[in-house]
Amino acid sequence: MTSAPSSEAFAAAAAGVIAMARYAGDRHWVPATSGNFSVRIDERFAAVTATGADKANLTEADVIAAEISGPKHPRASAEAPLHLVRYASDPSIGAIAHIHTLPATLLSRRHAAKGALRLDGWELLKAFTGIKTHETALDIPIVPNDQDTDRLAALIEERLGASGPVPGYLIAGHGLYVWGASAKDAIRHMEAFDFLLTAELHEENAR
Amino acid sequence: MTSAPSSEAFAAAAAGVIAMARYAGDRHWVPATSGNFSVRIDERFAAVTATGADKANLTEADVIAAEISGPKHPRASAEAPLHLVRYASDPSIGAIAHIHTLPATLLSRRHAAKGALRLDGWELLKAFTGIKTHETALDIPIVPNDQDTDRLAALIEERLGASGPVPGYLIAGHGLYVWGASAKDAIRHMEAFDFLLTAELHEENAR
Amino acid sequence: MTSAPSSEAFAAAAAGVIAMARYAGDRHWVPATSGNFSVRIDERFAAVTATGADKANLTEADVIAAEISGPKHPRASAEAPLHLVRYASDPSIGAIAHIHTLPATLLSRRHAAKGALRLDGWELLKAFTGIKTHETALDIPIVPNDQDTDRLAALIEERLGASGPVPGYLIAGHGLYVWGASAKDAIRHMEAFDFLLTAELHEENAR
Amino acid sequence: MTSAPSSEAFAAAAAGVIAMARYAGDRHWVPATSGNFSVRIDERFAAVTATGADKANLTEADVIAAEISGPKHPRASAEAPLHLVRYASDPSIGAIAHIHTLPATLLSRRHAAKGALRLDGWELLKAFTGIKTHETALDIPIVPNDQDTDRLAALIEERLGASGPVPGYLIAGHGLYVWGASAKDAIRHMEAFDFLLTAELHEENAR
Repeated sequence: MTSAPSSEAFAAAAAGVIAMARYAGDRHWVPATSGNFSVRIDERFAAVTATGADKANLTEADVIAAEISGPKHPRASAEAPLHLVRYASDPSIGAIAHIHTLPATLLSRRHAAKGALRLDGWELLKAFTGIKTHETALDIPIVPNDQDTDRLAALIEERLGASGPVPGYLIAGHGLYVWGASAKDAIRHMEAFDFLLTAELHEENAR
Repeated sequence: MTSAPSSEAFAAAAAGVIAMARYAGDRHWVPATSGNFSVRIDERFAAVTATGADKANLTEADVIAAEISGPKHPRASAEAPLHLVRYASDPSIGAIAHIHTLPATLLSRRHAAKGALRLDGWELLKAFTGIKTHETALDIPIVPNDQDTDRLAALIEERLGASGPVPGYLIAGHGLYVWGASAKDAIRHMEAFDFLLTAELHEENAR
Repeated sequence: MTSAPSSEAFAAAAAGVIAMARYAGDRHWVPATSGNFSVRIDERFAAVTATGADKANLTEADVIAAEISGPKHPRASAEAPLHLVRYASDPSIGAIAHIHTLPATLLSRRHAAKGALRLDGWELLKAFTGIKTHETALDIPIVPNDQDTDRLAALIEERLGASGPVPGYLIAGHGLYVWGASAKDAIRHMEAFDFLLTAELHEENAR
Repeated sequence: MTSAPSSEAFAAAAAGVIAMARYAGDRHWVPATSGNFSVRIDERFAAVTATGADKANLTEADVIAAEISGPKHPRASAEAPLHLVRYASDPSIGAIAHIHTLPATLLSRRHAAKGALRLDGWELLKAFTGIKTHETALDIPIVPNDQDTDRLAALIEERLGASGPVPGYLIAGHGLYVWGASAKDAIRHMEAFDFLLTAELHEENAR
């Protein structure tokens, strides 16, 4: 049913995966080989980091072409379902990054019971695609952590379906998923989240 | 009426813009493609970062020659007016940087209602041109954030006209504008603000 | 009795020592020439940083082949016994790093009286070999500091024998010892400890 | 009376000055062109950074040979007396660094009224020449800031004469002076102070 993507299409997507991974690695956002990254190839496939890869030193050999709605790829990481369901749910998503920044890990745990973290009034909210003014209150969903990633993926899609449009979500005590139309947009969104969550962490500690 | 600057004069000013942008990019002061930079070319023109440029990886093609008091340049960013009115108001200004450091963003928001942040007694105040002793109290103006940058520019010039001489001002929840006689001076002032605002943030959190 | 390791086996182990030392040096985890590193060569020998070496700029000449259970090597550092007893006690250990990260130094001192620091519920606990879920509570032993490293080594082995399996321990006001099956695993464990201890430090300060 | 140092002796000392300055610049310890550095050439001369030099990008042309007890060098910086009196007072000093680290600036201001900051019980105290155990309490003198550096130098020598041996002192709201037998020792002492003062700052904020 599915025809495999061309090697050119795969290589272009893998380059985006590597760009995101190196950027995150240089900023220490994927500590201890954590994190994973993907870029949509077409409506059926996405390039995704393979299980066990060192994300800070990624090469094309560490990237696989995974079917978005097909059977699991033998080298898919445990967290691949969390990427693939997003591509299936939202055709505007072109790239996804999962990173473990310290503020994301801390705030997601502290606010887990509330189910969301509000980002409100910061100019840098405008770095997220579609936001035009700092007079915006953005509720970033937080879901509880779960080692069963198929169950977790289903819960997340349910939560995201019920919320307004957001550029990412938090998993409690775990980290951040963030996406964009392209790898470049996802990188900008990673950096915006890092800044905004660090700012929120400072504000909380000062209260 | 206005004669365009020579290509040599533009190139020299653009080099200053790029130097400021790269310096700020390396220090993570322009997160998520935020920030903008300018250098005065002469009494009529300034070299300014164009809209949409990635400030951390700026090239000369990302810099435009904007008329200080003329009609808007088609590639001018939304924040260009905040640069241009400063050149029109103060002939001693040769370069301007707008950056989003974390302490500038946090302190500008916390102290917005007071309208100013006092920097007082630090030796590093002497890094600002014209300050000769640590026994100085410098009140940095804070203005509320506003997406209408023409209205914001008018408010800022009014506030700066009423204050003593300062090397910069804060926009609440947004960031810092800082200037100097040259790009080199503006870089030194950026670094001094970063140090002093980080110090103030620590002092507040310790109180 | 003991036959010296081959130069190939020594060179391979020394390369692992240097990789750990440079990684830690780049992250500022061995301030002021502190810290030391080792890799097991075989059941009788380990490659260990010599006394006085600058760990951030280590070369093979700064690494010695020390007998695990034999007499002290003339160029062994004062902390070499803390490495060697670990290799003697646990045949699964292939590499050991001793680093002075700020959170390790601070938390080890604050919690010295309790004798352990609990790490609980973080996804990044899974970076430690053998841990499969964030629903894990890991008690990292803390021992008091002691300039008599033979006495300290004996106390540590007693404490570790009484605890469950752990990837490292803390010395109060001093730093962290961390190990793994290989230099690569020890590097991943260093990075996981840095993240987790930084997270715990933030949580304590927020309480 | 005084014979000028040979060009070889000057070049060797200037290389030490540049090594300290670059090290400090890379760590952001000389913000906004602050800080200064020196290395003793012989009993009569020291190589010192000239006034106005950018310490993070220092070259030999930015270093002067200043007489330790002679008339002021025309290119000496305002803070040169603080270096030269130390060489005159203590023949064991071979190199001096003046840096503006954030913890040094903050703690020196907070504890100015007490006149000293105690560093106590940390293993890293052993990085200072002559300290053999963490069971050491080191009182680092703090003097008030003063733009009259001749008067300040006299006050500092009086305070240091009355205290036990120390590797440095603090100027309130200003920064740190630190020394060693060589540029290498002074670099190690800078790094030890940075670690220890950062640790103390965390401990204070947690109290």
